[in-house]
Amino acid sequence: MKALTYHAPGSRIWGEVPDPVIQDPEDVIVRVDAVTICGTDLHILKGDVPTVTPGRVLGHEAVGTIQALGAGVRDRAVGDRVLISCISSCGRCAYCRAGRYGQCLGGGGWILGNLIDGTQAELVRVPFASLSTYLIPATVSDEDALMLADILPTSYEIGVLAGKVAPGSTVVIVGAGPIGLAAIATSQLLSPRNIIVVDPAPARREAAAALGATMTLSPDDDVEALVRKVTQGLGAHVAIEAVGSPTTFEMCTRVVRAGGHVANVGVHGAPATLHLEELWIKDITITMGLVDTSSTALLLELVEAGTLVMPGLVTHRFGFDEIQEAYDVFSAPSETGALKVAMFGAHSTQAH
Amino acid sequence: MKALTYHAPGSRIWGEVPDPVIQDPEDVIVRVDAVTICGTDLHILKGDVPTVTPGRVLGHEAVGTIQALGAGVRDRAVGDRVLISCISSCGRCAYCRAGRYGQCLGGGGWILGNLIDGTQAELVRVPFASLSTYLIPATVSDEDALMLADILPTSYEIGVLAGKVAPGSTVVIVGAGPIGLAAIATSQLLSPRNIIVVDPAPARREAAAALGATMTLSPDDDVEALVRKVTQGLGAHVAIEAVGSPTTFEMCTRVVRAGGHVANVGVHGAPATLHLEELWIKDITITMGLVDTSSTALLLELVEAGTLVMPGLVTHRFGFDEIQEAYDVFSAPSETGALKVAMFGAHSTQAH
Amino acid sequence: MKALTYHAPGSRIWGEVPDPVIQDPEDVIVRVDAVTICGTDLHILKGDVPTVTPGRVLGHEAVGTIQALGAGVRDRAVGDRVLISCISSCGRCAYCRAGRYGQCLGGGGWILGNLIDGTQAELVRVPFASLSTYLIPATVSDEDALMLADILPTSYEIGVLAGKVAPGSTVVIVGAGPIGLAAIATSQLLSPRNIIVVDPAPARREAAAALGATMTLSPDDDVEALVRKVTQGLGAHVAIEAVGSPTTFEMCTRVVRAGGHVANVGVHGAPATLHLEELWIKDITITMGLVDTSSTALLLELVEAGTLVMPGLVTHRFGFDEIQEAYDVFSAPSETGALKVAMFGAHSTQAH
Amino acid sequence: MKALTYHAPGSRIWGEVPDPVIQDPEDVIVRVDAVTICGTDLHILKGDVPTVTPGRVLGHEAVGTIQALGAGVRDRAVGDRVLISCISSCGRCAYCRAGRYGQCLGGGGWILGNLIDGTQAELVRVPFASLSTYLIPATVSDEDALMLADILPTSYEIGVLAGKVAPGSTVVIVGAGPIGLAAIATSQLLSPRNIIVVDPAPARREAAAALGATMTLSPDDDVEALVRKVTQGLGAHVAIEAVGSPTTFEMCTRVVRAGGHVANVGVHGAPATLHLEELWIKDITITMGLVDTSSTALLLELVEAGTLVMPGLVTHRFGFDEIQEAYDVFSAPSETGALKVAMFGAHSTQAH
Repeated sequence: MKALTYHAPGSRIWGEVPDPVIQDPEDVIVRVDAVTICGTDLHILKGDVPTVTPGRVLGHEAVGTIQALGAGVRDRAVGDRVLISCISSCGRCAYCRAGRYGQCLGGGGWILGNLIDGTQAELVRVPFASLSTYLIPATVSDEDALMLADILPTSYEIGVLAGKVAPGSTVVIVGAGPIGLAAIATSQLLSPRNIIVVDPAPARREAAAALGATMTLSPDDDVEALVRKVTQGLGAHVAIEAVGSPTTFEMCTRVVRAGGHVANVGVHGAPATLHLEELWIKDITITMGLVDTSSTALLLELVEAGTLVMPGLVTHRFGFDEIQEAYDVFSAPSETGALKVAMFGAHSTQAH
Repeated sequence: MKALTYHAPGSRIWGEVPDPVIQDPEDVIVRVDAVTICGTDLHILKGDVPTVTPGRVLGHEAVGTIQALGAGVRDRAVGDRVLISCISSCGRCAYCRAGRYGQCLGGGGWILGNLIDGTQAELVRVPFASLSTYLIPATVSDEDALMLADILPTSYEIGVLAGKVAPGSTVVIVGAGPIGLAAIATSQLLSPRNIIVVDPAPARREAAAALGATMTLSPDDDVEALVRKVTQGLGAHVAIEAVGSPTTFEMCTRVVRAGGHVANVGVHGAPATLHLEELWIKDITITMGLVDTSSTALLLELVEAGTLVMPGLVTHRFGFDEIQEAYDVFSAPSETGALKVAMFGAHSTQAH
Repeated sequence: MKALTYHAPGSRIWGEVPDPVIQDPEDVIVRVDAVTICGTDLHILKGDVPTVTPGRVLGHEAVGTIQALGAGVRDRAVGDRVLISCISSCGRCAYCRAGRYGQCLGGGGWILGNLIDGTQAELVRVPFASLSTYLIPATVSDEDALMLADILPTSYEIGVLAGKVAPGSTVVIVGAGPIGLAAIATSQLLSPRNIIVVDPAPARREAAAALGATMTLSPDDDVEALVRKVTQGLGAHVAIEAVGSPTTFEMCTRVVRAGGHVANVGVHGAPATLHLEELWIKDITITMGLVDTSSTALLLELVEAGTLVMPGLVTHRFGFDEIQEAYDVFSAPSETGALKVAMFGAHSTQAH
Repeated sequence: MKALTYHAPGSRIWGEVPDPVIQDPEDVIVRVDAVTICGTDLHILKGDVPTVTPGRVLGHEAVGTIQALGAGVRDRAVGDRVLISCISSCGRCAYCRAGRYGQCLGGGGWILGNLIDGTQAELVRVPFASLSTYLIPATVSDEDALMLADILPTSYEIGVLAGKVAPGSTVVIVGAGPIGLAAIATSQLLSPRNIIVVDPAPARREAAAALGATMTLSPDDDVEALVRKVTQGLGAHVAIEAVGSPTTFEMCTRVVRAGGHVANVGVHGAPATLHLEELWIKDITITMGLVDTSSTALLLELVEAGTLVMPGLVTHRFGFDEIQEAYDVFSAPSETGALKVAMFGAHSTQAH
């Protein structure tokens, strides 16, 4: 089959590799119908993720159709249309039993496109299939489902739920890339009063406003003062970090009120300064973590029901054989305006 | 009356000042029977707390007897023996209505010995008396009650409850001063499996072991490895910072497991480094904050019932006129072995 | 002043009574600008509420303007436009400190129009004014604010929050009177998937559908089967009882799934049968209780922001001197179609 | 092998039946080393449980040693000493993913000795072995582990946790049979202030007092008044029903304070009367349900650590071939004083 493999920092190849086969009774083999690229894939290609070894098929988000099943898979069938979660779950370890699949100790967690071959391929082997794939309702499109493999549960679990967004909350979202925009969409499930979005790119601020942000700011604005102005001087209930830099993290700790929550969603490459000399007295809660995808089934239901309005994150669509071009587009968002790119296979229900 | 006043960095005076008078319908005047010194008082005396102005009577923890009441105080009487909480609560603002008295917006919070005259005096005016004093059960001694003015609720609320200690938890407490020792006592209300205490002073480690620590370590030990050893490699469920330094805070973030809690109780004077490049993926929750004393009534009940075993923190006892000596003893714990010092007035039920 | 007083079962008088005066430092006197009648007032008039004695001014919901203040009221001013909550809160007792104002032990709770004179009058004395009145944002009308005195917080706290409505929930609301309709509006703050409303009156079912019910049923339908049909056989996550009869309560226990919640909001006059022989194994949680109005400030904010869409419950509007007619209309809803009736005074911002 | 089978109401046989075999990749075959009888087994023998068909091997609690494994069992080995939980969990359905194994939709739940052959046999097949058996620490005896198959998690999850016992709580436990006594032991993990136990049998009241009950009452006492006396007139925070009769359930609803919890653990055969005409206003939460055994691993840890003091429920010990006598003893507790009986096999580490 064809697949996109990592070879060395800066080097990726779309070429022929062996088809995957069932290795464990709980595996399934899935024909990939739609797949996307994550910012993490770009980190891997820079050589920043040492667990990824040369020859690895990249990708951890996809929608597809089951082609083969291991002997122990009792609740999936060949032909089932499934969402492949970015997180696999063994279902047996203490973390999986607590719904923290991202921290799985039994061989799951983030393994696809990292410790085992991933989804940017015509076929992919998915371990622990019962807990790591989700049946897609007929009325949900491939493209919408694809956004639930990682982006939407990440924004909802690590941003909205960990941050304890509640009716009436003032939420500040720092960063209006795919995760930040998804946080705008998913936070609205809980009826916040204000959604204030901070991003340097005017186009992303416009996208934020279109999705329901009640105020959009540039980091050059006096963000802290403007947040206080709409909150009777108190600051935000929740600040969601959706960038992954020390500066934006520290902004989050400044805009939040006493008793508030800073929910870090961004992937960081460097430490931040935590101003405990100011914060120790302020009743702040700071959370961070890898998505568990424990909300994926719920989000699929809410998309099916129309309760969750999909944020329309896919800006560029390609065929599988255009994946190298898709990487180029996705790698240069300031020029291309890319948010998420998607590749669709021949069998996808989705035109591209 | 006699009182201990702050005059300038390094300068404190035990001398005559005017008696306090009722200024507001919700005030009471309390004759102080027992009073203690807090580490924060030492910070004030270094000039580190700019809100404290010269002439201010220090102190925010005391036990006493009500001498006079404002016209609006309906549930206290002259002669009532009361605990004076370190935190005052207006009872009306949004924070007080949520039980977050430490963040009171209506004139309360930490005001005693800070914004208004405090408890290191023969008499003290206590505002918002109904919500800022607690009737002391007859069987609870002055000295035990005194430890509930600040130390025990701080360790319980900001350490044990914020850290979500639960049956079976492994708790690491970094620092075995008064707060750390109180955290050993109060965490046992929730039946943790392991209580691991880290402190450089052998005497404090011994005190920790006597109070129920299951393992005591020096910071020179390989704390992280030893914690992992007793937790099947996972780390602690909860790490309680009870020192207030960047080093100890960072130790807390290293010993805690994925999904665990770091509860900062220490008062910090400098920022810490938050290693988000390692922690972003680890599902850590970090909390910090000023005590609310929302647990004070409960803790008094538990002391009365014998359910909470008092940690015996008072190492040195004095008369009121010996308060300058008490300050000296308390300021040099490494020489004197002091944990908490207490001054008792002539009417105290407690001998000294 | 003029007021509506209870005299004996079946006997109510709109006539002259003495003006109220400040009796306690925390009292305010409010000129009533808008007032409504509650189903409980009809119970009182039947003689069913023995705490209400002859001569009592009825009513516990109103909007008005402060005319006079007690000496201890520090955060209200003459001229303030306020919502008078159906629940008064002393702010000091253990229940008030826990936000359970409905259970106040310090002289509050449901006292207006019950233990003291109420709001169906030109003037009313409101005790514990700081915690029992709410400043009304300028953009919120008298009529909308009036619905927040009792109906909306009751449906939200005792129905939606106690029932733990959450994104994706299937909610069954039994009864589409004012409380049931308000529960439709307030449950939408939490993005349920299905809102199924059961009521015998076609007009109320139509009102329910207009407010966002996704399915409306008659009690003559096979409610249990139809609920299971839209929930993959499992039943509802939440059933809200908004009638107050054994039959409807028992229906709630049948339509709810294992692990689900029955939230009783209805006022009952007779016991129900609890089929523990079927339910003991089913992980059901049943809640009930008097409103605390702890959510009133939040709901006012959400109305101001437009986040909470007011359900438009007032079907009939009157002047104060038409209150007897208003009672007649409200007492015969099956003939008049009345949901809530409202009386407006000369100074109300609201035309009638 | 030998096993105890149900044949008809009143008829049980200890005799030869075929050995169990692996039927599913997730099965294990366990040699039973210790087994007990549950009150539910007596219900089955009365013919009250229609799902149990003639020929069924009874029993759903045991400790044993693994003899054989299905191909899909990856975290158990032949020779492992395991606790067999009374609840099996498929690990895949929505209920199992939420930790509600008792409500498993995927073939688990209470199946042993009910829908499939159970543990009162020399060998037993246990499905879904990874999630339905627990490795026993070496220092925990067979007899102690046996009490964790059903009794202790039931009292802890459905009584203590569902009832929200917390430090300082006043807990009333109605019924001092095995479940009630286990609730005394497990509630102490959360440091209640008062544990008041109600039972008609003096011997059981003595056992309750020995385990830590702070007050023991007969149902003939004025329970409601005595509970109010020790709670400043308020009533209990938590009432745990551990009998299963309408009378005791109704007692629980009367002794609990406003805001309190009634946790029903008893198995009921008849409906109770719920006095909503009194309770609707009282902020009561009532919970009920089948155990999930989600706490079993934790309780095993706490027994190993000595944090949970085992209540010593086994009053009579037998060999396997004495099981008929054990049934007779267990069926007549008022004559024999039996709480739990246990049968030990030849390989048990436990003498009998």
